[in-house]
Amino acid sequence: MQPCELTASDAAALIRDRELSVEELTRSCLARIASRDAVVKAWLFLDPDLAIKRARELDKRAAADWPMGALHGLGFGVKDVIDTADMPTTHNSPIYEGSQPGRDAACVGIVRASGALILGKTDTVEFAAGGRKALSTNPFNPQHTPGGSSSGSGAAVGDFQVPLGFGTQTGGSHIRPASFNNIYGLKPSWSLVSREGARMSSATLDTVGWYGRCVADLRLVAECFRLPGLGGPKRSVKGLRIGVCRSPVWHYIEPAGVAALEAAAQRLEGAGAIVEELVLPPAFDGMAAARDLIAAYEGAGAFLPEYLSSPHIIPPDIRARVEARAGFDAGKLRAAYTLADQCRATFDALFGPKLDAVLTPASPGDAPEGLHTTGDAIFNGIWTLLQVPCLGIPCIRSARGLPVGIQLVGPRFADAALIEIAEACAPVIDAEPDWARKTLFA
Amino acid sequence: MQPCELTASDAAALIRDRELSVEELTRSCLARIASRDAVVKAWLFLDPDLAIKRARELDKRAAADWPMGALHGLGFGVKDVIDTADMPTTHNSPIYEGSQPGRDAACVGIVRASGALILGKTDTVEFAAGGRKALSTNPFNPQHTPGGSSSGSGAAVGDFQVPLGFGTQTGGSHIRPASFNNIYGLKPSWSLVSREGARMSSATLDTVGWYGRCVADLRLVAECFRLPGLGGPKRSVKGLRIGVCRSPVWHYIEPAGVAALEAAAQRLEGAGAIVEELVLPPAFDGMAAARDLIAAYEGAGAFLPEYLSSPHIIPPDIRARVEARAGFDAGKLRAAYTLADQCRATFDALFGPKLDAVLTPASPGDAPEGLHTTGDAIFNGIWTLLQVPCLGIPCIRSARGLPVGIQLVGPRFADAALIEIAEACAPVIDAEPDWARKTLFA
Repeated sequence: MQPCELTASDAAALIRDRELSVEELTRSCLARIASRDAVVKAWLFLDPDLAIKRARELDKRAAADWPMGALHGLGFGVKDVIDTADMPTTHNSPIYEGSQPGRDAACVGIVRASGALILGKTDTVEFAAGGRKALSTNPFNPQHTPGGSSSGSGAAVGDFQVPLGFGTQTGGSHIRPASFNNIYGLKPSWSLVSREGARMSSATLDTVGWYGRCVADLRLVAECFRLPGLGGPKRSVKGLRIGVCRSPVWHYIEPAGVAALEAAAQRLEGAGAIVEELVLPPAFDGMAAARDLIAAYEGAGAFLPEYLSSPHIIPPDIRARVEARAGFDAGKLRAAYTLADQCRATFDALFGPKLDAVLTPASPGDAPEGLHTTGDAIFNGIWTLLQVPCLGIPCIRSARGLPVGIQLVGPRFADAALIEIAEACAPVIDAEPDWARKTLFA
Repeated sequence: MQPCELTASDAAALIRDRELSVEELTRSCLARIASRDAVVKAWLFLDPDLAIKRARELDKRAAADWPMGALHGLGFGVKDVIDTADMPTTHNSPIYEGSQPGRDAACVGIVRASGALILGKTDTVEFAAGGRKALSTNPFNPQHTPGGSSSGSGAAVGDFQVPLGFGTQTGGSHIRPASFNNIYGLKPSWSLVSREGARMSSATLDTVGWYGRCVADLRLVAECFRLPGLGGPKRSVKGLRIGVCRSPVWHYIEPAGVAALEAAAQRLEGAGAIVEELVLPPAFDGMAAARDLIAAYEGAGAFLPEYLSSPHIIPPDIRARVEARAGFDAGKLRAAYTLADQCRATFDALFGPKLDAVLTPASPGDAPEGLHTTGDAIFNGIWTLLQVPCLGIPCIRSARGLPVGIQLVGPRFADAALIEIAEACAPVIDAEPDWARKTLFA
């Protein structure tokens, strides 16, 4: 097995035990990228020499017995809407070609302080909001999208080009690519992880998250972010109360999405979980529309600088969003925010003795064909607006051989408990954990 | 009268009519700074040569008949927690000494695109959050604080060193300095103006606002930010329904604060407004504590990068905030967010046929003596957590000759209406509009 095939947590253990050097791991990732990049196109910026240099520095520190951070030597693909001090941040926009912010985003600074190696910047939908798509393709079929807007991070982690990645979610940009690329993803509770230095599109919705190839990888990063409550006792699937939520947008579901949700529910029930249907109260029916209104309104303010400074380069859909603000109705806006506020309290109150986690689709189905689309965020937006933690887990393969995941959702700020629940559930839900590696390295 | 004594809107008109050059205005501001900086100490970064160069560029554009932006040639003092592409941004922290982010914050980009001249960076409480205070003094008595954390912006605009300034508010950092420095300030509705590129401390609370020396100045900037709804008919004080809100923290009020609130209420009533007592429902009693909990919790995540990268330089109070997060109780946190959510809807619903605006203290009283304090934010935090627009207006002089303002507050997203109401009320409330100029230029 090549080092790039290792999960982040397995690689971390080998590095700590001096059985693997950071340079070996980094060279293996770079070789994997070299062999695959012409097809997968996950990266917007990659400097192999810089990566090797950083790897050697980390190996020197380890040799000199400096204390190793929990992420010592592990590579990160950083969505190119997130600032990095030593690499350009372009937002996949010609307005920011070659732009170098000179300071790490909060999330990048935190993992760097924990020893991570920032391998490069990954392709994204322009500004993670509109305009042009990433060039990235799905690792399992290049005719299909890897999802978006965290397209490159999803594809790179799914294709074993890098063990860890950062994405962002405003609608479904983090959890949907997890589903399409057969990887694990955590979108933490809103405001739990600083989004400073990640391109702002919507103050209410934007959330930074991370990808790995198992729950242990997500936990490893969560520990560096000091998510409160980590360190509880191990959970068992037996007796876990899981609410299967088809959600108010179930009419958008596709056969592969139905199959994934049913498979996950059956597998959990078979392992002893108490699985029951969860129907959200009628107020939640308005959440998808409320999310769209809030995203449009907040985006209008967020993109005003580019609208004014670069009127001929800003994408037409973002331009239209800025211009639409003049027509917003304050009363309708207040109603949208108030609905979200009320649903948050209602949703949090569902949890307790009768409910541990919600099981719900991560995407309508498998990755659509074509790179003109990144798929539909409709099964994600409601949870983004609820600001609750979501954890994506791979589940099945569709009729056309593409992966489909599901997500587990918890109440606000119970991210640590959600990770613990996922540690218990993932081995059951992700029934063929080695499928992707076997397929891609066949 | 020297050009630096002009309000922004008066200066804008003279520049547009070619009766004043940008260079003349800028040189006048620089001369005022030169004569006062040893006492007022408002600036952390100021490059007079760069300012003159920019002024000449703007004059050349005007001479070449380029279209002039609404802020053409008007100087801005930018709180040094807000990024500027051509000046350092230090957050008044040794961690970021000399740091240059290489990109304008959204608010800076927007006013620059409207022709503003960024004059320099103003002193601030470290990270606008804790640690060390600004060195700035109150323009009306250097033994007193100008307030904070927007200390330098408040003092510089109040002292006629620059016509306009940016501040930020997480507790009471924008509106309180407006009161202490005898200036006008707008803290817009949360999420209406992009806070991107302003140092994050709390995603729920942080808000970028601006200062001027009359309501017309605030409107001038608001137009550049395209606040929706501007352009309504002129309002009259007669018949305006004003709710005087002593707020649930009235026991913190000082004699000067009582005098300001009563003077404003009486002056409005005398001019024909319908002024009635407004008592907030009991749920609002918990808002101050909820704000503190949310600020502490979100701050813990926001300062984790510095905690990890600069453990020996991070201020002890911010270090303690990061370390406290391990002990946060998710249930209590959810209760704080839920209380805020509920009070927002309740507060918005108060407005309508029976209420146009709330009149409430902007500070407990006048500026306290000493630079070890920036005063108490207790009369601001509740409105910050409500995420409603607040507009600070100068009102009276205290027994010791210091200015004291009040604030008008409206429902979320009705910022334009609040500006219109303030245009009607300010000539009544601010009974001696020329007091500061006469005092400081005596």
